Amino acid sequence: MPMSDKLRSQIDFIIACDREKQVLRQTFLCDDSRRENDAEHSWHMALAAMVLREYCPWDVNMEKVLRMCLVHDLVEIYAGDTFAYDAAGQEDKEAREQEAAEKLFGPLGEQGAYFRSLWEEFDAMETYDARFAASLDRFMPFLHNTQNNGRTWKIGPVTSDKVLKRMEPIRTAMPEVWNVMLDMVEESIEKGILLR
Amino acid sequence: MPMSDKLRSQIDFIIACDREKQVLRQTFLCDDSRRENDAEHSWHMALAAMVLREYCPWDVNMEKVLRMCLVHDLVEIYAGDTFAYDAAGQEDKEAREQEAAEKLFGPLGEQGAYFRSLWEEFDAMETYDARFAASLDRFMPFLHNTQNNGRTWKIGPVTSDKVLKRMEPIRTAMPEVWNVMLDMVEESIEKGILLR
Repeated sequence: MPMSDKLRSQIDFIIACDREKQVLRQTFLCDDSRRENDAEHSWHMALAAMVLREYCPWDVNMEKVLRMCLVHDLVEIYAGDTFAYDAAGQEDKEAREQEAAEKLFGPLGEQGAYFRSLWEEFDAMETYDARFAASLDRFMPFLHNTQNNGRTWKIGPVTSDKVLKRMEPIRTAMPEVWNVMLDMVEESIEKGILLR
Repeated sequence: MPMSDKLRSQIDFIIACDREKQVLRQTFLCDDSRRENDAEHSWHMALAAMVLREYCPWDVNMEKVLRMCLVHDLVEIYAGDTFAYDAAGQEDKEAREQEAAEKLFGPLGEQGAYFRSLWEEFDAMETYDARFAASLDRFMPFLHNTQNNGRTWKIGPVTSDKVLKRMEPIRTAMPEVWNVMLDMVEESIEKGILLR
């Protein structure tokens, strides 16, 4: 049976997405053995959303949150990863990512527009769903750094005030986790793996 | 603020799950550059569920399907990956995985029991949700092999009848994808990357 153009574009999209497994982040695995890639980060973040849901005080739509976690880094397949503490890289990030979104989602038509809207909602951090997802996107690399002696924090180097600023979405999205995180920041400073 | 025992066990669980990124599958990435790990496979499978949902004729609960995709390989953190075409490995797989499930999910209490039930439902392949998820678990490595010259098919070597038997869940879960897959099997045989 000949493949429909639609299914062909969907299978091509799934194959293109395989490349997310080769987009390396600045974050190292918890055991410090190697850098993490976007695909495994997205999986870990979605899993953490399931685990930590109860700490979010808002009425979030978990199906949508999970979908957002899964697609939130897809544009990096073409735009690359931009280090959160790299001011210069942040400057042209939006233009690079919009172009990448067009290239990646364009061929998928209506479905692509939907995936793109999920990513844009996540990125805008305005809805409760997006704010909860974003808080997990911030919390995950933080957690890794507490485990691998601040491996990424040493690049820069990053100070605790910058880390706290970056973690800000957690304050309202998961208040109890935020409080625990503050203690973890203090412990990290005492251990000498994060600069005050 | 001292961390509650519950949140402590949840954060420990999230950290333990980082190890799924180091459980290597037999499958190679689409570009054949290296073996795939369980974490990135789970992400890719969940993403494919979103993309191919329309080909499933059943009334599936997508939130549950996505949750299943995310947890379906977690027990391999302690039980290891068992190659689908390894008959000996399949024999003690269940005992190894039950033990691993106890170790991984036990400390999480009620939430752990829920995650375990998701995994068990997936594994039993009886509900529509599980059958749809399972069909994607089968389709993904198939798709990889069509891209990387049958890299995993050469181990064994695997013949087309074995591949088709393994892909059987796709026949009813995604009939149009099944038909297209049959053509891809024929093409793979003609290209010499799969034995008839």
